[in-house]
Amino acid sequence: MSWNFIQTPNSLLVPPIENGFYYDFDLGTDSDGKPLAFSPEALEKIEKRMRQIVAGKHEFNYREIGPDEARELFKDQSYKLELIDGLIEGNVDEYGAVIDETPVLSTYRQDTFEDLCRGPHVGDTGEIRPDAFKLLTVAGAYWRGDENNAMLQRIYGTAWHTRDELKQHLQMLEEAKKRDHRKLGRDLEIFIFDEDVGPGLPLWLPNGGIIIEELEGLAKEMEGKRGYDRVRTPHLAKDALFERTGHLLHYAESMYPPMEMEGVRYYMKPMNCPFHHKIFDSKSRSYRDLPLRLGEYGTCYRFEKSGELFGLMRVRSMQMNDAHIYCSEEQFEEEFMGVVDLYLEYFRIFGVEKYVMRLSTHHKTGLGKKYIDNEPMWLKTEEMVRNAMKNGNVPFVEVPDEAAFYGPKIDVQIWSAIGREFSLATNQVDFAVPARCDLSFINRAGKSEIPICLHRAPLGTHERMIGFLLEHYAGKFPVWLSPEHARVIPINDSHNDYAQKIAERLREAKIRAQADLGPDRMNAKIRQAQLMQVPYMLVVGDREVENSTISLRKRDGSRQNGLPVEEFVAAVQDRIATRSNEL
Amino acid sequence: MSWNFIQTPNSLLVPPIENGFYYDFDLGTDSDGKPLAFSPEALEKIEKRMRQIVAGKHEFNYREIGPDEARELFKDQSYKLELIDGLIEGNVDEYGAVIDETPVLSTYRQDTFEDLCRGPHVGDTGEIRPDAFKLLTVAGAYWRGDENNAMLQRIYGTAWHTRDELKQHLQMLEEAKKRDHRKLGRDLEIFIFDEDVGPGLPLWLPNGGIIIEELEGLAKEMEGKRGYDRVRTPHLAKDALFERTGHLLHYAESMYPPMEMEGVRYYMKPMNCPFHHKIFDSKSRSYRDLPLRLGEYGTCYRFEKSGELFGLMRVRSMQMNDAHIYCSEEQFEEEFMGVVDLYLEYFRIFGVEKYVMRLSTHHKTGLGKKYIDNEPMWLKTEEMVRNAMKNGNVPFVEVPDEAAFYGPKIDVQIWSAIGREFSLATNQVDFAVPARCDLSFINRAGKSEIPICLHRAPLGTHERMIGFLLEHYAGKFPVWLSPEHARVIPINDSHNDYAQKIAERLREAKIRAQADLGPDRMNAKIRQAQLMQVPYMLVVGDREVENSTISLRKRDGSRQNGLPVEEFVAAVQDRIATRSNEL
Repeated sequence: MSWNFIQTPNSLLVPPIENGFYYDFDLGTDSDGKPLAFSPEALEKIEKRMRQIVAGKHEFNYREIGPDEARELFKDQSYKLELIDGLIEGNVDEYGAVIDETPVLSTYRQDTFEDLCRGPHVGDTGEIRPDAFKLLTVAGAYWRGDENNAMLQRIYGTAWHTRDELKQHLQMLEEAKKRDHRKLGRDLEIFIFDEDVGPGLPLWLPNGGIIIEELEGLAKEMEGKRGYDRVRTPHLAKDALFERTGHLLHYAESMYPPMEMEGVRYYMKPMNCPFHHKIFDSKSRSYRDLPLRLGEYGTCYRFEKSGELFGLMRVRSMQMNDAHIYCSEEQFEEEFMGVVDLYLEYFRIFGVEKYVMRLSTHHKTGLGKKYIDNEPMWLKTEEMVRNAMKNGNVPFVEVPDEAAFYGPKIDVQIWSAIGREFSLATNQVDFAVPARCDLSFINRAGKSEIPICLHRAPLGTHERMIGFLLEHYAGKFPVWLSPEHARVIPINDSHNDYAQKIAERLREAKIRAQADLGPDRMNAKIRQAQLMQVPYMLVVGDREVENSTISLRKRDGSRQNGLPVEEFVAAVQDRIATRSNEL
Repeated sequence: MSWNFIQTPNSLLVPPIENGFYYDFDLGTDSDGKPLAFSPEALEKIEKRMRQIVAGKHEFNYREIGPDEARELFKDQSYKLELIDGLIEGNVDEYGAVIDETPVLSTYRQDTFEDLCRGPHVGDTGEIRPDAFKLLTVAGAYWRGDENNAMLQRIYGTAWHTRDELKQHLQMLEEAKKRDHRKLGRDLEIFIFDEDVGPGLPLWLPNGGIIIEELEGLAKEMEGKRGYDRVRTPHLAKDALFERTGHLLHYAESMYPPMEMEGVRYYMKPMNCPFHHKIFDSKSRSYRDLPLRLGEYGTCYRFEKSGELFGLMRVRSMQMNDAHIYCSEEQFEEEFMGVVDLYLEYFRIFGVEKYVMRLSTHHKTGLGKKYIDNEPMWLKTEEMVRNAMKNGNVPFVEVPDEAAFYGPKIDVQIWSAIGREFSLATNQVDFAVPARCDLSFINRAGKSEIPICLHRAPLGTHERMIGFLLEHYAGKFPVWLSPEHARVIPINDSHNDYAQKIAERLREAKIRAQADLGPDRMNAKIRQAQLMQVPYMLVVGDREVENSTISLRKRDGSRQNGLPVEEFVAAVQDRIATRSNEL
């Protein structure tokens, strides 16, 4: 749904978002030039007024208007005029290709209020349940996400079919707030951002470093078993490379600006594929070399406006669980489903119970603009993917007009433990770029053939994945992913030596452990370990020293006294080795 | 020694190099504009003429000359005029700081030949043994290493005290040519360079990827035991960061040009330290947090002129075995020597028998220019390093005026198995930048104190290290570093299943192995494995199938028939686990 429910000279309509809507206002600035904001009381008043309007059961009436009328109608609203001008003059799609059609300008009117909107809307305001919507928060938002523009006041709201749905949603939001990856990331010392380094460029602290190593270890193990080779490629290349692959033509807006050295322009890589194509091409290949699976946890750099950056979820540097699989057409199905299996395996490991696979296909009208202009190949590869998914009994939904430039893809959406949706990973078919890069292999018949390329990143990027996992686990990582497996806590100073000895034994057994020998009292140490979500606290006193045991206190509060050290070691090693989600 | 032995209107004097000398000539271009070069016959003629001059026992006479006379004397030699102008006008040191002193211009004359030279020289040409020098090669070299300049012809020569020394050196060069890391890197499929990616930016092929993983595994293991934490930081940052650390002031020439985003200039990182300082500074630190050891195999980007790039030895992207140790003064000695121990441990692992540790100190005249202007701290930290090295019984030589900008350092030079010298690693004391970055910790007395920082990279960069190792081992990597541990070769097709089974068993045991089931004959397969320097070839035929054994053929030609598979597995696992240099 999309509502236009209020009007000030500088208010702004925007499209609905997941589970709700927002609306931007320019309230002007105070005498210091600071933007004025809504008070909590103002929000309450607005909400009250909304209920009055809802009660009025006003019809929503749609009409299309010409450019002149649009400009006249919104002549006092500068932001809307800018949008109108943009729609009329900038008739380009997101790839920069000019769109032939004249854009349609439309409004919706209810009662005396008319606003620019593409729709659709409900029939009349009476369809809205007055007890199933709520205004949530106000936040500053730069106009068009650009920090050089004015800061607007954005009111977020949510709307549901029933009061119960609203209640459930508000509870989820409450939980999500506690699990906010930015807060947990700071509290658990996973990552920081730094003003001097720049926005969107996370620095991973030692605890983050451990989680990254574990994720990479997982990827290397899984990919190693599946016959992937690992390569390493530079973070930048000459313009020549990105011209050849088409990135500079179709993707330049998301790339960093160039650096010029000795008259040559170099670009940070927004993707790893051009480099992997070069490695494929570094020697002559035959069908016997295929499938060739080149994996790299490569760091890519993409430009995002600073106003659109968000924690680890939207960043400017991202380390990607990337790989490119080069195969023949007859190998396609097995390779494609091998990747889908990998997804399912990861979901199992991370306890992701809800997910959706979306087959994104091309749309005829985008050919030559948004999509490479080769309809037979589109139809053929889409059918290949469809069949592969059906043969593999993997449920999927089909979404037209959302494919990649060079071929159809499977987008994977997953839901965290509290029911929030994340887009993490894709599995893309590329039937176009290998040809542009002159890639070929000698097939069984002795003829030159162009390989199909699969672009895949089941674990997404470290940034997004760890952001997701922080929320998913509420910072309570499973043992294998926990930066610190165990902390040994002496009851008093006289048990320090024993605590130290236990910690050393654990480290020897590859269990990440330390003894807390600080000056705090035992209870403060337990609280501290608990705050850092350390899975196991090992309390040691006279009795433990005497019997060579430990008293185990798990993060969930459960306890086990007098546990022999080696029994604990074996249990933890098993949890780690099996990447168990059990504590 | 430094000789000026020939004169053409466009010849150039240059300083001597390790084990020899070179001399550049501009011979003009042919009708296509291609630079003319010396023929092998020309080199022979020049060498003959050199022996005549040597026989003449001409004295070398030094004199200092003024700028005007210098310009007059070399008025027909454009390159020398450029050098003279540079010396006179550009009186700056390599950090861009202006030098007070007027530069001294000098020449050496023997017989009728006078040339610009700083010296020193031997007394007369009679001191040169006519049978102990040799001209070696001619190569194109851009004037001042810049590919936009003219290409000159560079004659390389070598000179020794005795004929035997020359002979030995020529044999070493012959061996070095066979071990050329660029050739081996290509033949063994370790790395490539690509025209579209750019010069000095290596792409690591799967075999290189394995060597890198092994080196990183080694570093992680060794550093893990020594209490290092691992972090990850972006490859670029705002100018603000590099201004704060002083890189933009003192090091800008070696940095990539900036990228501007939203009005802010970003630079690729030439070093990891500024980021690690930020991580140190991300929370308040007490003496209980120290020493803090932050490790990262971080990729740094440094600008080198394309004409000065050389294989993996001089590159534009380098992944560094970096770490920064923050400690108090009282912890300094133990931390510093801990790093020196790490060097020695690595030398043992890699079988490096000859090495020199050079303590590079400041020089009074460079204070405030080349060196941070704080003589008491220089004297104090130099003495600290000196004492640490003496107390640790580690021999070292002292080299004045070669310190880093911010403190004294130990440079480590190592010699490869064929006696070539490499500079790989440094261990640097930094008593200046922590203060510039406002780093501090609360000491035992409850007061704020600035930590000392050690910059250390015992394994250097992957690029240089792997370049060194390729030469050092002549491509015959020890088992643990070999990209492929074992290749199973069936005697004929009927043994393919067994070969496959053996390869699977080996992979299960974490031995990198494959079965060569291709159409070639057994001998061709053995030859192929031998060319790739695979340490172990496992030949399997009827007898091996029958007895569940393998016939082992090592890379060095030694053989062992009828070896039980598990015996082989255990032996190889032991070689790998101990990182043994034995085959």
